[in-house]
Amino acid sequence: MRRSVAFQGAPGAFSTVAARQLAAGCKAVPMETFTEVFESVANGKLYAAVIPIENTLYGSVHENYDHLLKYGLTIEAETFVRIVHNLIAPPNVKKGGIRRVFSHPVALDQCRHFFEANPAFARTPYYDTAGSVKMLMEKGLTDAGAIASADAAEIYGARILQKSIEDDRQNYTRFFLLKKAKIARPSNAISNVRYKTSVVFTVKNIPGALFRALSAFALRDLNLTKIESRPLRGKPWDYLFYVDFIGHTSDPAVTHALGHLAELADMWRVLGCYPAASKQIS
Amino acid sequence: MRRSVAFQGAPGAFSTVAARQLAAGCKAVPMETFTEVFESVANGKLYAAVIPIENTLYGSVHENYDHLLKYGLTIEAETFVRIVHNLIAPPNVKKGGIRRVFSHPVALDQCRHFFEANPAFARTPYYDTAGSVKMLMEKGLTDAGAIASADAAEIYGARILQKSIEDDRQNYTRFFLLKKAKIARPSNAISNVRYKTSVVFTVKNIPGALFRALSAFALRDLNLTKIESRPLRGKPWDYLFYVDFIGHTSDPAVTHALGHLAELADMWRVLGCYPAASKQIS
Repeated sequence: MRRSVAFQGAPGAFSTVAARQLAAGCKAVPMETFTEVFESVANGKLYAAVIPIENTLYGSVHENYDHLLKYGLTIEAETFVRIVHNLIAPPNVKKGGIRRVFSHPVALDQCRHFFEANPAFARTPYYDTAGSVKMLMEKGLTDAGAIASADAAEIYGARILQKSIEDDRQNYTRFFLLKKAKIARPSNAISNVRYKTSVVFTVKNIPGALFRALSAFALRDLNLTKIESRPLRGKPWDYLFYVDFIGHTSDPAVTHALGHLAELADMWRVLGCYPAASKQIS
Repeated sequence: MRRSVAFQGAPGAFSTVAARQLAAGCKAVPMETFTEVFESVANGKLYAAVIPIENTLYGSVHENYDHLLKYGLTIEAETFVRIVHNLIAPPNVKKGGIRRVFSHPVALDQCRHFFEANPAFARTPYYDTAGSVKMLMEKGLTDAGAIASADAAEIYGARILQKSIEDDRQNYTRFFLLKKAKIARPSNAISNVRYKTSVVFTVKNIPGALFRALSAFALRDLNLTKIESRPLRGKPWDYLFYVDFIGHTSDPAVTHALGHLAELADMWRVLGCYPAASKQIS
């Protein structure tokens, strides 16, 4: 039996492209919400999950940062997917006949120039990108288009009317592969691989607290590749900090940095340690 | 003639509550998008704008951080509004008859427990909270409800079926009043007021760069109240940092910190210096 990987959205979503890169040969199982995706792995029903964590234009997918903390899954791998948005419609619909364009709000927002150039199109928020193509086809809408991946057009038998309508070509999404597992130690065979470690921590709300926490990394010359703050539930205006840096948890510098962080932080946890993906910047 | 303040959404949006606090006596002018709100002030058509910048549960309104940088408006004041979500429907609709509940995706997301307790209700994303009440009433929908403020129910003649359905009562949104103006210097008369300063900066993508930039504040014991990272457009995986701290730009410690930041940052700008609002945490 093929192993199953949960993702949010409909077949043809950018997450399925990421799933092919992160879990080749696995069956991608669509779910409606990120909560269901995390739960399906946390309760042992599915083998793994593929989730988007940040996009070069939109920023972080904050809900997933919150779920990472809540469900305690481990980040096993990362990958980058180049996001290409297309105007898609049923085969019988022409561009001139379109009045409404459905897609996920983030995708609509990433095609602002396209909507400015086509003022007749009403931006219509929908649950997800590929799902909006599916819906168009199922309902047989004749006045509507959708914004989604080329995969989605093919899967649902729709037609691409205009390719690559995103404002900015440097549009990449970073995805994580998550499993219910302990953080792996590297074998000697792959010790030349560059690793990334993700941690989350809180600090006291006093002057210089974040600065001191970051000194744990800076004093060991560890390169931070991402810092994200999230509101701490139940403590308005206090924050959780999510930090990614280059290094493996078994490197001496990382061991020392985490020991130092443990001294300075109110709470801290390693979320994962995984091979750093190449950035594929065009 | 009354001065006009732009806000995003329909009358009854939480932004209109903030506008009453930040610009009492001004006329609140609804606009469809945040882009229009910023543009209306940047091009001198309207006097000021009121925008949400962060929420204790959702986190930052990232689009507005991007607009703050792009349009160069000045933050003149801040305030906090307690967010209470209500299930609202036309007067003739009973809770048992509801199949769809419309609201802004963030509001839907803040009422997860409510939807778990009411599985018959389909979460239906709409442009905004108050606008979904307006739409229900205009279309005369009989199978639908909306999630919005009590103000919205009153304005559109709808009825509150269930009060305070948000998951977490510690749900506050911070709003900014923005104007096209230079940053004001404090007069002696109000020198006992606690001020907050907001800055944005970028640093080189090298180890320790953010740490060194934060040292400009930490070495002067300035209390950071917020740090936010945003992707830098055109430079995938590089970030802009938005920092708020307690202090006025004319305080010697702040002057020194900004001089030090100028040395360390690739780009930096003061976004505003304004009286710190009380946090109104219940």
